[in-house]
Amino acid sequence: MSDPVFILMAPQMGENIGAAARAMANFGLRELRLVAPRDGWPNERATATASGAFDTMVSVQVFETLADALGDIRFLLATTARRRDMVKTVYTPQTAVQELGTRAAEGWKTAVLFGRERNGLENEEVARAQGIITVPVHPDFSSINLAQSVVLMAYEWFKYGDDTETRRLNRGESPPATQEEVQRFLTRLEAHLEQGGFFRAEGLRPHIVRNISNIFTRNELTEQEVQTLQGVLTALTKGES
Amino acid sequence: MSDPVFILMAPQMGENIGAAARAMANFGLRELRLVAPRDGWPNERATATASGAFDTMVSVQVFETLADALGDIRFLLATTARRRDMVKTVYTPQTAVQELGTRAAEGWKTAVLFGRERNGLENEEVARAQGIITVPVHPDFSSINLAQSVVLMAYEWFKYGDDTETRRLNRGESPPATQEEVQRFLTRLEAHLEQGGFFRAEGLRPHIVRNISNIFTRNELTEQEVQTLQGVLTALTKGES
Repeated sequence: MSDPVFILMAPQMGENIGAAARAMANFGLRELRLVAPRDGWPNERATATASGAFDTMVSVQVFETLADALGDIRFLLATTARRRDMVKTVYTPQTAVQELGTRAAEGWKTAVLFGRERNGLENEEVARAQGIITVPVHPDFSSINLAQSVVLMAYEWFKYGDDTETRRLNRGESPPATQEEVQRFLTRLEAHLEQGGFFRAEGLRPHIVRNISNIFTRNELTEQEVQTLQGVLTALTKGES
Repeated sequence: MSDPVFILMAPQMGENIGAAARAMANFGLRELRLVAPRDGWPNERATATASGAFDTMVSVQVFETLADALGDIRFLLATTARRRDMVKTVYTPQTAVQELGTRAAEGWKTAVLFGRERNGLENEEVARAQGIITVPVHPDFSSINLAQSVVLMAYEWFKYGDDTETRRLNRGESPPATQEEVQRFLTRLEAHLEQGGFFRAEGLRPHIVRNISNIFTRNELTEQEVQTLQGVLTALTKGES
């Protein structure tokens, strides 16, 4: 199964190209195409923000026109935030990767097209695609940064076919303790342990304290349980102070 | 249901704080806490990259210590790329938002903790959390930018509570065409093709007609599009009949 090509249409800022490449590399995507990058190529700022993505993972091809960049692509989805007056299916990133995935599994070369930072894609550019991807966002703040849009698609592609697992803890009537309640207990416990000569090797102390902290924090203690533990500590140290 | 607080531990670059805030705003998250930001607060570079997020959506609180920032939090997940030698549950972003969501639905205040750009979180900091979030990434390029990590969590959180249709055909004002309208067009097309000598081998004709039919039926044509196709056919056959 070949991964989709990511195509940036007339990207303006090198920083965004670099951040996009880094995001692609994080999720194992290797083919980046640039159509008419404003500041030419290569671009120093892109290299700086890519954190080495161009050296190890992502290869770049530059094209003069979108038609050139799309020549060998058999299934294309275009990302756009705006609603278009076009008869096309609109996918979320999650369903888009399913569509890309079924084509890729058959061996077809697929691509995702991203628009300019300021204006996005023009209608003629969107019209070339088989479908549209729109990230569902909050209506009051819908302008997504180019590299952020790239990372969401790369992430969903990587996740495609991934398993999930959940875990739930039943804690009865008492609410979860606040961090403050837990820390108060841990601080008091540590003081008592010190009094009791628990920390023989001072160098190991941070490690031991951390381990003890983990015993109590991973349990999502309830308020009731913290009170209980405080009582336990009092009982154990009776007469000390 | 209250949204999780996002907490950045000792963030170094203002650009990342701004980009994180913009990403939060995209997905409707309003509460950002900064613990000991390196360059103080407010920060001009953060404002520049936030694209107005601080004005309209995201409010910032600054704390000197992590303990202060966590005081009222009842369920905390810490993001980390590295595997830790700690007894804790590790979630993907997708399962993490389910964990956050079930607590938030019960009314508890939750938070996600993000580490420094260069070193991430220290073990003592991770130890405070009820669980760990690790974004599944490509093993050869696992270093995720801070703002990218924030956008993935914000996106998953928004998706968790979002009921956007995941696949929707945008057909504008026009309803889907009726079977009758489509068939009328196909019948007329077939008649013109016959006049033009298209069907050389009469035995293959049903097969060819079916293939042509499939080209037009699988598109879910709108009424408007069928009218357009009828006009196209008229233009192409002008003078014929």
